[in-house]
Amino acid sequence: MQLPTAISVHDIADYLQAQVIMGKHAHITGINEIHKVQHGDLSFVDHPKYYAKALHSAATVVLINTTQVDNPQQKTLLYSQAPFNDYNKLVSKYSPLENTFMPSVRSQTARIGENTQIMAGAVIGEQVRIGKNCLIYPNVVIYNNTEIGDNVVIHANSVIGADAYYFQKQGEKGYVKMRTCGRVLIHDNVEIGAACTIDKGVSGDTIIGEGTKLDNQVHIGHGVVIGKHCLLAAQVGVAGKTHIGNHVILWGQVGVSKSLYIGDGAVVYAQSGVPKSIAGGKTYFGSPVQEARAKMKEMAIIKHLPKIWNKLKRL
Amino acid sequence: MQLPTAISVHDIADYLQAQVIMGKHAHITGINEIHKVQHGDLSFVDHPKYYAKALHSAATVVLINTTQVDNPQQKTLLYSQAPFNDYNKLVSKYSPLENTFMPSVRSQTARIGENTQIMAGAVIGEQVRIGKNCLIYPNVVIYNNTEIGDNVVIHANSVIGADAYYFQKQGEKGYVKMRTCGRVLIHDNVEIGAACTIDKGVSGDTIIGEGTKLDNQVHIGHGVVIGKHCLLAAQVGVAGKTHIGNHVILWGQVGVSKSLYIGDGAVVYAQSGVPKSIAGGKTYFGSPVQEARAKMKEMAIIKHLPKIWNKLKRL
Amino acid sequence: MQLPTAISVHDIADYLQAQVIMGKHAHITGINEIHKVQHGDLSFVDHPKYYAKALHSAATVVLINTTQVDNPQQKTLLYSQAPFNDYNKLVSKYSPLENTFMPSVRSQTARIGENTQIMAGAVIGEQVRIGKNCLIYPNVVIYNNTEIGDNVVIHANSVIGADAYYFQKQGEKGYVKMRTCGRVLIHDNVEIGAACTIDKGVSGDTIIGEGTKLDNQVHIGHGVVIGKHCLLAAQVGVAGKTHIGNHVILWGQVGVSKSLYIGDGAVVYAQSGVPKSIAGGKTYFGSPVQEARAKMKEMAIIKHLPKIWNKLKRL
Repeated sequence: MQLPTAISVHDIADYLQAQVIMGKHAHITGINEIHKVQHGDLSFVDHPKYYAKALHSAATVVLINTTQVDNPQQKTLLYSQAPFNDYNKLVSKYSPLENTFMPSVRSQTARIGENTQIMAGAVIGEQVRIGKNCLIYPNVVIYNNTEIGDNVVIHANSVIGADAYYFQKQGEKGYVKMRTCGRVLIHDNVEIGAACTIDKGVSGDTIIGEGTKLDNQVHIGHGVVIGKHCLLAAQVGVAGKTHIGNHVILWGQVGVSKSLYIGDGAVVYAQSGVPKSIAGGKTYFGSPVQEARAKMKEMAIIKHLPKIWNKLKRL
Repeated sequence: MQLPTAISVHDIADYLQAQVIMGKHAHITGINEIHKVQHGDLSFVDHPKYYAKALHSAATVVLINTTQVDNPQQKTLLYSQAPFNDYNKLVSKYSPLENTFMPSVRSQTARIGENTQIMAGAVIGEQVRIGKNCLIYPNVVIYNNTEIGDNVVIHANSVIGADAYYFQKQGEKGYVKMRTCGRVLIHDNVEIGAACTIDKGVSGDTIIGEGTKLDNQVHIGHGVVIGKHCLLAAQVGVAGKTHIGNHVILWGQVGVSKSLYIGDGAVVYAQSGVPKSIAGGKTYFGSPVQEARAKMKEMAIIKHLPKIWNKLKRL
Repeated sequence: MQLPTAISVHDIADYLQAQVIMGKHAHITGINEIHKVQHGDLSFVDHPKYYAKALHSAATVVLINTTQVDNPQQKTLLYSQAPFNDYNKLVSKYSPLENTFMPSVRSQTARIGENTQIMAGAVIGEQVRIGKNCLIYPNVVIYNNTEIGDNVVIHANSVIGADAYYFQKQGEKGYVKMRTCGRVLIHDNVEIGAACTIDKGVSGDTIIGEGTKLDNQVHIGHGVVIGKHCLLAAQVGVAGKTHIGNHVILWGQVGVSKSLYIGDGAVVYAQSGVPKSIAGGKTYFGSPVQEARAKMKEMAIIKHLPKIWNKLKRL
């Protein structure tokens, strides 16, 4: 980001309670992470492996967690014990939140915690509870009876608590829907991207565990239970009643079938399909998934097929 | 769901016109389906195969379609000819609809049938017609000229009738869009999940047939025609002008290419890709799809490839 | 589309400054493209390959770019140098825009160009700039600092500029989010479908190049740069920091991994997965992708596997 006006390095050091340890520049004109940095920018580095890259980048000022480095370009260095967190503090200070100036739509029975912001066009149903310090972005829809913890972020146009996709075939009448009366429970520190959909349980609860982060356009079916600190990348879909452990990572466009278990710490590569339960602590790939190494080996052998085929024709 | 107060079994029997046939419990404190049931709950069972499971579950009261069962735990049984439907009636009674207290946005030329609820933030375009007993959830957008039958449900943030994705390349100007003037027609008893998108036809109509059910995040391209009583699971995409017959099932994340035909009763497993027309009455899998049995066989043989490869190297 | 009243061919010729070259019909009652045409309709044809099809279709009036054709059914022909564009003009005249009668939600710092329409329920953040002649459909959410050029169309419920999906694992605290301060820049003549999500850059910009067209439910990650005149079909996902060249085509449900390059003019078939950079000017298929011809060959050989297996067992 470019700053509206140049800001003095000493003001920044004061704000962060960081120490100016060396360098010649007195002002910054922007804040950027290391891949996008320009002259005039403040950036940060927090791992010795990347010190040299940061100190040879275009950055003018670098937040760094050491005082012992070679600084050939005489960049201005600010010593910080936690450069990542201090960088975040600065960005928060100079990058205000989305607009909250328009009323949202709340039921009279909804209870909203302190310091939670419900933005324009969001619709909050009956008996919904939302904790403290949450950000509910514009046009989010939260159906009746949903419970949301503290420090939860839900990006624009996501839908929390729509009905289960659950029907019974009744002869000539076709599919008759089972009325949904469960809830969605979202625990503390969860972040949900834009245009996600999380259905309520048929009669029990759909649960997103503490600290879990969903990217955009993720679909979570009815009654799914997801553990703590999981990552679900964009366009992942999880069908009804599946249980996902803690620290699980599902990369983009993964599909998970219904009523199965994924063990703690499992990692599933992009576009894979999970039709059966899989054990924790391993890495998976393919549709249907196998352990990634086995799948990779299979793919390598398939590359030999033309040779195999030619050899066989000669036999 | 938990009930706000305990409710007497006799009140429930009266409401459902069901008969209390045996058992010792006089009240329920919750309503749940069999996989989530707790002590105090009413549940239901409607197939002899599951009678024992229901009667050994934690349920306190069971809606059941027989009077001739072993009931060792002396659960209270309520006889019903249609337990599924009676369970739905109860859930509807105790689980009110989403909020409808805020005005939606309707064009002056839209015509809305009796008992249809248009919820907060929904936007209804010019010349739209919506039948009776429909539920249009918050922030749904219905573009001009869309026609919707009776008993249709559209969940939050779905978009009905956006423009066809249809361009002509015109040299240096790049892609020029063909102006869309068709409509979307949604027949009676259709249900559409949250965050779905159904485009209008380029000049003809996109049609969703009677009783068809779409899960969340389904995309239907311009001019697609879908028959009666189909199921399209979450994140399915169907490209423009494809025709899908009656009673077709597409599981999650299936992709269907443009301008092809899927016959009546076809079933396509999750994540499959359909690049060409496929006959009805069969089950398919893979990307590109094959008949599921052939695909499964192929996958089993691929598992032998390391052995084949080793054997060949020795020849 | 059906017209509300019959319209005289001469009025149409006047409006388009087209010349009536032959035929017996004096009025049209509808406008349709060639695949959907009915008696009474005007349609168009602009390529000699399709002249016969148009002239044997049910159309009553045909916009055509030749005066030298066989016209056995004595259809009324209107000569036009650009039948596609003239057809579009007619549809625009008789098919009005979606409703714009309800106020949207705009920040006081947003700047909106001439003749741009922001429709009901759209939310426009702080410091947003939108150029001239844009259509922002209902319930679109545009986050702070987004910049949009001229002649841009964004369909309903899309979200432009939500936060990057970018976290750092910090021991027991779990994932800590990197605050996003980049922007989204959308250049002239871009069209974005319904329910798309385009995230802002972490500190740099996400860029959609001139004339590029996105279908519905497309996800674009943080800091992605897309060139000019690309087509991204429905449900495509592109992960963070990837660069896509000019004239690239990604068909439906393609997934592209992060931080890679796709060369100019590359075409990737539906449901493919792109895990590494790929060169321009070629066509790709598979997950992971290979050149389409190589992949097709591999798939053909896999079909021989049962034979290979049987042959080997006999050796």
